[in-house]
Amino acid sequence: MSPMCDSQTQQTFSDIGEKRFLQLIQAYLAREDAELIVGVGDDAAVISWESARVTVLTVDALVEGNHFPHRPRVDWFRLGRKSIAANLSDVAAMACLPRYVLVSLGVPADLMVSEALDLYRGMHSIASQYGVGIIGGDTVRSPLVMISVTVVGYKKDSGKLGRRSLCRPNEFVYLSGHVGASRAGLEILLDPKKGAGLSQGALHSLLGKHLDPVPRVELGLALGSILPNDFGMIDISDSLFNELSLMASASRVGFQICVDAIPRSQELLEYAKLANESALDYALFSGEEYELLFTTSLAPNDLEVALEREGISVPVTAIGRVTPEAGKIEWRDSEGRVLNFSDRTYNHFRGPHE
Amino acid sequence: MSPMCDSQTQQTFSDIGEKRFLQLIQAYLAREDAELIVGVGDDAAVISWESARVTVLTVDALVEGNHFPHRPRVDWFRLGRKSIAANLSDVAAMACLPRYVLVSLGVPADLMVSEALDLYRGMHSIASQYGVGIIGGDTVRSPLVMISVTVVGYKKDSGKLGRRSLCRPNEFVYLSGHVGASRAGLEILLDPKKGAGLSQGALHSLLGKHLDPVPRVELGLALGSILPNDFGMIDISDSLFNELSLMASASRVGFQICVDAIPRSQELLEYAKLANESALDYALFSGEEYELLFTTSLAPNDLEVALEREGISVPVTAIGRVTPEAGKIEWRDSEGRVLNFSDRTYNHFRGPHE
Repeated sequence: MSPMCDSQTQQTFSDIGEKRFLQLIQAYLAREDAELIVGVGDDAAVISWESARVTVLTVDALVEGNHFPHRPRVDWFRLGRKSIAANLSDVAAMACLPRYVLVSLGVPADLMVSEALDLYRGMHSIASQYGVGIIGGDTVRSPLVMISVTVVGYKKDSGKLGRRSLCRPNEFVYLSGHVGASRAGLEILLDPKKGAGLSQGALHSLLGKHLDPVPRVELGLALGSILPNDFGMIDISDSLFNELSLMASASRVGFQICVDAIPRSQELLEYAKLANESALDYALFSGEEYELLFTTSLAPNDLEVALEREGISVPVTAIGRVTPEAGKIEWRDSEGRVLNFSDRTYNHFRGPHE
Repeated sequence: MSPMCDSQTQQTFSDIGEKRFLQLIQAYLAREDAELIVGVGDDAAVISWESARVTVLTVDALVEGNHFPHRPRVDWFRLGRKSIAANLSDVAAMACLPRYVLVSLGVPADLMVSEALDLYRGMHSIASQYGVGIIGGDTVRSPLVMISVTVVGYKKDSGKLGRRSLCRPNEFVYLSGHVGASRAGLEILLDPKKGAGLSQGALHSLLGKHLDPVPRVELGLALGSILPNDFGMIDISDSLFNELSLMASASRVGFQICVDAIPRSQELLEYAKLANESALDYALFSGEEYELLFTTSLAPNDLEVALEREGISVPVTAIGRVTPEAGKIEWRDSEGRVLNFSDRTYNHFRGPHE
């Protein structure tokens, strides 16, 4: 039985995008069962083999020309790091520990072996940094380079899970680090003129945030150990705007966000000023930030103390509250004025969301 | 530190192929550690989280134009089934039970949604047939369709593992089902004239073996429960010739194979006769057969009885013995004559192996 009407079968992916496709294939996806704690629809799937160790699994694909530039304009080492980082971030967003990865690699027959080795060196450098081992994979011929990484990890026995569906009204909304710099870095990569006038330090920092993001593995684990219950969490892989909307819909809540509280780096402010753009726009619509967005009733001071006790130095900022109004995201500035934004998150099937 | 000399960094993938690449990246792959029982180099990786349930993981990628025809010449439903079957077969080759899959999918923006849904329907149909759930994935834009499937499963608590490195001298070599038909089916697909003259039944059977292979999940599990120890096993994804050589090298043994004992289907014999080709060539060099090749000291009669007791109806044939001469594969016919073959397994980076 087709889960959709005929008119839709005539559509292409550029008509419907990934989100709608995910709805259409719901019928084919596993329901949560006795062993499957979290199925499709979160940062990672969670299984519990006979209640022993709770296992977490996630996969992400990257394709040449879409997620990274066409050859030869590729920094293979950093691409290797980033392809693993994105997946470690998904495991971090479940408050779990990543342990092993499998790498499925499509390579053109004329790819230089040295390039593929640089890619593996990059993957290995970040994997070993986080105690993660590369334990399997498949290498196939493909006209373009494509990389699909699967990560498996587990929840620490006494730890709590972070899930996008667990935000509760009145909780605080927190964001780690700062957002917006990744899009600025991407713009400079695509058009180096845009970086002219920036200090060397700012240039380096913006490019680094895009090319070599830091997955918040320690923070995610610390939250899993600090918080008393499973809690609301997601990582910023698309955009803060988009991830808030995903959390709202999964948790059936709303958010009131103070836009002035959203953390932006000095380097982003410097870039936005030079470009005569709004740094807030970058903060709201930049993807691939890999910061953690989470909710808890723990007040900012208490959270700060608890994180310090766990040895976490990454800053965490309260940017708003969870509200009971399902799906409603209210943006306010620090003077209480309500602001409106339309979604300008990049959609890789169609360009910016309309 | 580069694990290779400079001349090799100037090489491309078509110069070195996948096998050599795997050697070059050894330094970046995880060694077997306290939790990692089997790392890179078998059909699947095996991990043991605090000795509770032994988890098995494997990934396989398929790319349009390489592993399946270019659009629109694709039977999406069957492709979905096959992409999962290939991975279930890898788990079967470890004598483990597949439980969940993650699907990473690259799709062109102009792909019809109905095509992708047929793919998912196919994946779901075989997954549910084997009690396997689709629990995660990623859908990204890509100029060509590419599918990467990760399977996770586990070893039954009292079960034994099948590993390609565990063949021991004097054991019998067994093969499930029959081999050769998949290549015949592929040839007919590529050039339907080659199927002219075949009976409808033979045509259907040869095409089916290529397009809709049956992973030997029940047989793999039954062997894990029958045999007293972990044992030698691999599945035929490349070719019998190639897999014997992989097992020989992983187990540091040799094989004496009786070519006349290698099971070939009636349909393959019919096809080979019409084409005036040697059915043995098909049996030795056909890939994507997904039959199990395994070794044990259990004699044919005893094995047959034990399998029958487990309710296994798939035929299993003794085709030779394990010898102590590492790497030496000796082919004999039923009259004892020694035969020589050069490797004609298809290498997707370079065409047939030289």
